[in-house]
Amino acid sequence: MRKISLLGATGSIGTQTLDVIRMHKDKFQLVSMSVGRNIELAKQMIQEFSPTIVSVMHKEDAEGLQMEVPGNVRVYWGEEGLIQVALHPDADVVVTAVVGSVGLIPTLEAIRAKKTIAIANKETLVTAGHIVMEEARKHGVSLLPVDSEHSAIFQCLNGEENRSISRLIVTASGGSFRDKKREELRHVTVEDALNHPNWSMGAKITIDSATMMNKGLEVIEAHWLFGLPYERIDVLLHKESIIHSMVEFEDSSVIAQLGTPDMRVPIQYALTYPKRLEFLDEKRLNLWELGTLHFDKMDFERYRCLAFAYEAGKVGGTLPTVLNAANEVAVEAFLQRRVGFLQIEDLIEEAMEAHVVSKNPTLEEIQLVDGQTRKEVLTFIKQRGL
Amino acid sequence: MRKISLLGATGSIGTQTLDVIRMHKDKFQLVSMSVGRNIELAKQMIQEFSPTIVSVMHKEDAEGLQMEVPGNVRVYWGEEGLIQVALHPDADVVVTAVVGSVGLIPTLEAIRAKKTIAIANKETLVTAGHIVMEEARKHGVSLLPVDSEHSAIFQCLNGEENRSISRLIVTASGGSFRDKKREELRHVTVEDALNHPNWSMGAKITIDSATMMNKGLEVIEAHWLFGLPYERIDVLLHKESIIHSMVEFEDSSVIAQLGTPDMRVPIQYALTYPKRLEFLDEKRLNLWELGTLHFDKMDFERYRCLAFAYEAGKVGGTLPTVLNAANEVAVEAFLQRRVGFLQIEDLIEEAMEAHVVSKNPTLEEIQLVDGQTRKEVLTFIKQRGL
Repeated sequence: MRKISLLGATGSIGTQTLDVIRMHKDKFQLVSMSVGRNIELAKQMIQEFSPTIVSVMHKEDAEGLQMEVPGNVRVYWGEEGLIQVALHPDADVVVTAVVGSVGLIPTLEAIRAKKTIAIANKETLVTAGHIVMEEARKHGVSLLPVDSEHSAIFQCLNGEENRSISRLIVTASGGSFRDKKREELRHVTVEDALNHPNWSMGAKITIDSATMMNKGLEVIEAHWLFGLPYERIDVLLHKESIIHSMVEFEDSSVIAQLGTPDMRVPIQYALTYPKRLEFLDEKRLNLWELGTLHFDKMDFERYRCLAFAYEAGKVGGTLPTVLNAANEVAVEAFLQRRVGFLQIEDLIEEAMEAHVVSKNPTLEEIQLVDGQTRKEVLTFIKQRGL
Repeated sequence: MRKISLLGATGSIGTQTLDVIRMHKDKFQLVSMSVGRNIELAKQMIQEFSPTIVSVMHKEDAEGLQMEVPGNVRVYWGEEGLIQVALHPDADVVVTAVVGSVGLIPTLEAIRAKKTIAIANKETLVTAGHIVMEEARKHGVSLLPVDSEHSAIFQCLNGEENRSISRLIVTASGGSFRDKKREELRHVTVEDALNHPNWSMGAKITIDSATMMNKGLEVIEAHWLFGLPYERIDVLLHKESIIHSMVEFEDSSVIAQLGTPDMRVPIQYALTYPKRLEFLDEKRLNLWELGTLHFDKMDFERYRCLAFAYEAGKVGGTLPTVLNAANEVAVEAFLQRRVGFLQIEDLIEEAMEAHVVSKNPTLEEIQLVDGQTRKEVLTFIKQRGL
């Protein structure tokens, strides 16, 4: 029985993680979880999965919830609550499916407590990859990827030596606007952007797919997870999202991982690694039904966010934090209809150009830069009278 | 330094094996080799690679060659010569690239001498899989596949547990006539058949690709190499030959091995396993240049030889030997323009129907059935006045 702590239970990865646990109740047990503001959903989850440590975002919600749950359940709140969830003494694996930089401290605490990390929180590696990987190494902790692309690469590396890798080939569907030219992007709507052709995901990540920033963040994560320089991480357009990513080895052999697009498969793999477990869903990949797979060259002018991400990754230091924070604020503003789709790129570019990079930053510096960037981008938006 | 014994040095796999050795003279050394009748080529090879044991097909060639080679080279002939080559005391790996059932005894002798086998001879597993696998198990010997499809599956299984496999998906290009309907096959010529779209191979295997018998033999080999029932080995039409084969696991994940079609890659992998080694050729897979990969359902009525092979494999015993021997004679007759392309299938079907299967045959029975079948098919051909 593998005991699971789940940070971010009500989000897209969170609910799919619970679905995996539900499919294999004899193999997995949820021992702790965090939610944000969705207390009603949290109550249903507590009833179904019986975790003994629960955390919510706000103090008042915690106090209310504590009154309604069984006596053996402790309810916490805020960042301290996330840490309590991550440090549940019984937890073998911590799934970090919480969104945003709030995932960083609990992840580091869990690493220090020698918990295996199933990593789904992007900020952890994008902003603090150098700190997180060093702590993981120091404590002998495995970081198991949950993202389909990183899980694919991780699976392709099974039984292989890292020194044999020539390059990683991360596939990208191209997102909602992949068939549009750059000129056509000026007046696209939020609704258009949220209509992803292959994957059902949260709003932020769906917009990030349309701008290709999602792939940019994944490239930075891949750099940290697999220890390869950016020059050896390529992005390939593959609109069907069937090949989830690939590894080319020095002998020119390419190993790829394929499947129908279903996030529960990589989630389950992170929970069962190094073993596999039957996937209790009928939908299996059938290539002859699909008939064709398409591939296209990445265009860094069409997808400027990907170029920004490579730049931020290569420069390193605090620049990836700026990239990520500026993107979060810009996407939020787009979702609120305050800026247009292409202005997301402009805002990120402006923030990156204004930033003076600090090399090898501490956690405090990262958090400071994160906060400053967010304010700055809001100011840019206001200055433009948006 | 890995020391290599090469059975069948002048054939297609043999010369490509030598090419791999040539690319990495610091890693590989040819210690022994066999050739057939091409003594001139053998002399050049001896000069370049300095093996100390050499075998040729005929006694008179052996006597002539012995006079011309350096004093430390011993020249043998016939089946005994093949065994001497396979048992070279320094050899770590024996590459069984010899064509036909003559490869069987030397392979078994090498297994008993605990040599690693890089297996490229089809008859070994098709006709005597039950004996060969049992000997390999008994002596703790690895059989490393050289065929691109089996090498692909073998690579996809790196670091995985065999019990997690759902099914093997062997890809098939469809051969020279893949765009022709069955009706159009009646009057195709030998020249048409030898014109394979993707791979440059010997005549026999190129015809076997066109009839799909090659894939059928590979399915039987895969059954033995990977220990899976035929119901869990599928064949998928994939005309580009870029995905060399795949494995679907129980969690619905599919791992595939891809590359440009170049036999030297799987040959090199068999020689370096479990490590990889740089492939010293510029040609790397570029999926965006290719643009599209196509997949199509296998049609067992269009490709009757594949249905015969599944039947032979499932029934087992001496039936795969009949399948293989009948096919060899029929293909030879086609190459000699004595029978038409579609008569290859008819001759195999006739031989299989006439055969009374013996279960779990000994080597002697296999050889007896092999010889009988060959005679019988020649008789069928004569009876038809061909």
